[in-house]
Amino acid sequence: MDTNRMMSLAALVKARNVGKANPELMIALCRDAIARNDGRIRAFAHVAPSSGSQAHAIQTGAPLAGVAIGIKDIFDTFDQPTSYGSAAYESYQPRVDAAIVDLARRQGATIIGKTATTEFAFFKPAQTVNPHNHAHTPGGSSSGSAAAVAAGMIPAAIGTQTGGSVVRPAAFCGVTGFKPSFRLLPTTGMKHFAPSLDTVGLFAAGVEDVAMLAALLTGRDLALSAGEPPVDPAGIRVGLYRCKELETADPAMRAALDKAADKAADAGFDVGEIGEPEALAQARDAHSAIQNHEAGLTCGPDLARYRDLLSPILIQAIENGQAISPSDYDTARRHAKRGRGTTRALFSEVDILLTPAAPGAAPRGLETTGDPRFNKLWTLMGTPAINIPGFADDTGMPLGIQAVARFGQDKRLLRVAAMLETAFRT
Amino acid sequence: MDTNRMMSLAALVKARNVGKANPELMIALCRDAIARNDGRIRAFAHVAPSSGSQAHAIQTGAPLAGVAIGIKDIFDTFDQPTSYGSAAYESYQPRVDAAIVDLARRQGATIIGKTATTEFAFFKPAQTVNPHNHAHTPGGSSSGSAAAVAAGMIPAAIGTQTGGSVVRPAAFCGVTGFKPSFRLLPTTGMKHFAPSLDTVGLFAAGVEDVAMLAALLTGRDLALSAGEPPVDPAGIRVGLYRCKELETADPAMRAALDKAADKAADAGFDVGEIGEPEALAQARDAHSAIQNHEAGLTCGPDLARYRDLLSPILIQAIENGQAISPSDYDTARRHAKRGRGTTRALFSEVDILLTPAAPGAAPRGLETTGDPRFNKLWTLMGTPAINIPGFADDTGMPLGIQAVARFGQDKRLLRVAAMLETAFRT
Repeated sequence: MDTNRMMSLAALVKARNVGKANPELMIALCRDAIARNDGRIRAFAHVAPSSGSQAHAIQTGAPLAGVAIGIKDIFDTFDQPTSYGSAAYESYQPRVDAAIVDLARRQGATIIGKTATTEFAFFKPAQTVNPHNHAHTPGGSSSGSAAAVAAGMIPAAIGTQTGGSVVRPAAFCGVTGFKPSFRLLPTTGMKHFAPSLDTVGLFAAGVEDVAMLAALLTGRDLALSAGEPPVDPAGIRVGLYRCKELETADPAMRAALDKAADKAADAGFDVGEIGEPEALAQARDAHSAIQNHEAGLTCGPDLARYRDLLSPILIQAIENGQAISPSDYDTARRHAKRGRGTTRALFSEVDILLTPAAPGAAPRGLETTGDPRFNKLWTLMGTPAINIPGFADDTGMPLGIQAVARFGQDKRLLRVAAMLETAFRT
Repeated sequence: MDTNRMMSLAALVKARNVGKANPELMIALCRDAIARNDGRIRAFAHVAPSSGSQAHAIQTGAPLAGVAIGIKDIFDTFDQPTSYGSAAYESYQPRVDAAIVDLARRQGATIIGKTATTEFAFFKPAQTVNPHNHAHTPGGSSSGSAAAVAAGMIPAAIGTQTGGSVVRPAAFCGVTGFKPSFRLLPTTGMKHFAPSLDTVGLFAAGVEDVAMLAALLTGRDLALSAGEPPVDPAGIRVGLYRCKELETADPAMRAALDKAADKAADAGFDVGEIGEPEALAQARDAHSAIQNHEAGLTCGPDLARYRDLLSPILIQAIENGQAISPSDYDTARRHAKRGRGTTRALFSEVDILLTPAAPGAAPRGLETTGDPRFNKLWTLMGTPAINIPGFADDTGMPLGIQAVARFGQDKRLLRVAAMLETAFRT
């Protein structure tokens, strides 16, 4: 277990602002933590050299000065190699940053390294292990982003989710993983897999931390400011989402979800249960056809050029995707569209949905990265979703609760999640 | 005037299918036409070497065997340099093709070269001239794609439209330019400018040609097949779209639009006039904020790295975009969303809208590429739109009529456009 000392981005920034931490030292602290831990955790595909190049100069006074951020190696970086988790892109050096990397640099962040990703953010695992138990997967595809934060090497990391690749590894590693509303963060310069699903997300220790990062990257009112009038939990309808998949979750996870509901009620929220509309079950089933058809188009050029360097599981996914007919794809998109209408209606009955963030704790073994079945519907719906840690199974492995809000209600989700985070710990 | 002998893709394919043309000769014909004409037209940023490399081998029996396609140099190609019209990407060589290029190759097309684009598909002109009069702009941003088809060098080309970059140059060059419904063709591997607007489009001599190409690239039922029951024009409501901008069009263009309406009526269509709903005027005004805010994000990394190599007009656009607040962007998106609802309602009253494809014929001079004000609303709405040639001003420069249909009604638009194409010529 290497997760005792997660770094809080918000706490670091506050310490820096009152002169109790200086940016150079904050970065040095992360470099040291990486040097000490990453030999075991293998969260990084590449660590930036500490040379005094302009790219790594600290912009004193900038909002994220001294904040080291790990970038999932599915995003281009002009100053670090970018391999998309694939032998086909070994030693590839893009010319410019991805848009999200540029946003982080504009706020003064130090891009400390590239975090490990599964191949093309699909299912072939990276080498990363789970900091809570090295024999268990950290989840995927944003494996390194979740593990690097969990192991206390960096205060924040950026990832992507097409199925469940932010919320699931966050749950498995016991960190906060925030998948914002679709397109809140720009995807340009990421290696796309399924463009209508690919969503940029954020990892940090706690809800306040991801909220601060989201606010700084977007310039939007997303930070949890102490100055705002508090949310009255009695006015927030929290619904336990009784989807059919719930029966397939591990008993420990179902128990954790029940406990989460109890603690939310104890904290004063208006807690109830809510069944899954049939249109949403259909939409969930439509995710695969949409993802795979788009992957057939998006990764077709890689298959044409680099078949020998791609894994069998990826080749099969691309070929399966190319075999999905446009009319089957259109049918799936119609189900998704209907689902979005149903989701809007659902969020007139409830403010926040709670579901498992994954079927259980991180599975043992590094051969797979776990199952996104509790995440992919919300990726397809474009709704904001967040993993809130706080529970564990009887071996001590983290169990995450996923909270979901209406499209565009990212601020509300973050505010409620911060309250639930506290409630879950008491 | 170098436009006497446009090549028809459909005619070439039919000749090939009955043994009257062979693929090698078809490609050689295009190479010869490029060698003879492109010194004057400058439609190509790069022409593929004719070496016998595997990438250029002709797949006999494939649907597009022998069909030479020009690719706007805003798309990646693994075997040809890709410069995005920018000094910042001079001699850049991508690893893999853009998705649309891969689709064309999978159908057996020969990627004969990269067609000139304005810088990043924005407003700084390429060197291309208008084949109808070399002192006039070919339009932009897909300048080379339109000019290469117009000058009879190739039977088809691929472009993109974020404002009016397919329909406008097609109109200026007197070719068919088809901007399909948003996301009908994949954008992965293009240099994005504003991802929620960037749309891949097709250029060819006539409507049957773009329809055949669209069908082959997508696997969708889009070809104009002689076997189908004919469209009864009396059942098609064609609306002359009386937007406010119409008053700002050149007199020659307004006369051409009136003639187009008369000829459509003569051909038996149910022709009327339709006013512009206020929500659509507002949506058109929202296009700039959406485009520029997204360009600020998307091209921010280029500005950070390559400021010295970008043009002043592009730098200003990116910086203006970065200054647009998220709330102004959100307001613009709300206007766009309301506009889409209004567009759906509009297309319950009418099947096809007719508008100018541009304010007039191609302006004299190569310093600008003309104005997209008649195109950008439909790019934002995601509706299919097509330029239908057939008229000219008193100097003989082409005047194009734009036809627009409901989102997803690409087949209907193509069928009606083919009938209007005939009607305009009689």
